[in-house]
Amino acid sequence: MTKTLFRTTIAILAASVATTAMAQVSPEDQIKFRQAGYSFMSWNMGKIKANLDRDYNHDQVVGAANAIAAIANSGMGALYGPGTERDVGNVRTFVKPEFFQNMEDVGTLARNFNAAANNLAAVAANGDQRAVSQAFGDVGAACKACHDKYRAD
Amino acid sequence: MTKTLFRTTIAILAASVATTAMAQVSPEDQIKFRQAGYSFMSWNMGKIKANLDRDYNHDQVVGAANAIAAIANSGMGALYGPGTERDVGNVRTFVKPEFFQNMEDVGTLARNFNAAANNLAAVAANGDQRAVSQAFGDVGAACKACHDKYRAD
Repeated sequence: MTKTLFRTTIAILAASVATTAMAQVSPEDQIKFRQAGYSFMSWNMGKIKANLDRDYNHDQVVGAANAIAAIANSGMGALYGPGTERDVGNVRTFVKPEFFQNMEDVGTLARNFNAAANNLAAVAANGDQRAVSQAFGDVGAACKACHDKYRAD
Repeated sequence: MTKTLFRTTIAILAASVATTAMAQVSPEDQIKFRQAGYSFMSWNMGKIKANLDRDYNHDQVVGAANAIAAIANSGMGALYGPGTERDVGNVRTFVKPEFFQNMEDVGTLARNFNAAANNLAAVAANGDQRAVSQAFGDVGAACKACHDKYRAD
């Protein structure tokens, strides 16, 4: 893995993230922080699903959708820096090596995910439950598109 | 710990979160999800600090502040349900028992934190670096106010 390739990674996934800020975070912490982001998004996906399946609470869905979108928009690409492509000490990563070898595709998947997350937040604010269901499915599909290719079981 | 007290906890911390949705999440996962939320917020706090200390990148600060605010607004109170006041299996929690015995105070601290986080997001969008520095300090103080009282070392 070359330094240039990692820079490309960052450029594609998080153009707005200054490398200086990223440099402060150890590979171990980068893995922990990205897993924290995905974990917190998954909790909020679960809440939206529960709302769609049962009593729909507008405010809860809006809060959950906003959290997913804001996390998606926070420049998580900076958390895939050098040294994060493998386990670090006790910190396991589920990312496949192929992730770092297909940055153009990863960039497309990341942009698709962000667009789906932003759409879900916009649709949730509007309050149309059927539209939320569709937008929620689109986010799930965007998650799965990356997981299927680049997350190990 | 009575069931009523836990219900009060939820009412104070996350009035908008339906208990039905919360019931799906195991105590172990509640602890993991709340730690994920705090962890991801801490990454974003670190990014804002790095921007204030060095080259200020407006978009990065906005993204970080929005993530913190959206996580704060996502009803994390639902992640302090019954069974989460102590370690569960291998999942450690740093919350002190006093947290669950002082819900009125916890509610005040939580509201103060959310207000500070929302203010930081609003100020970051405006772009005045000095105002961001002040608002960032207020969020840090709101974090610390709860940590000092209710987080074990």
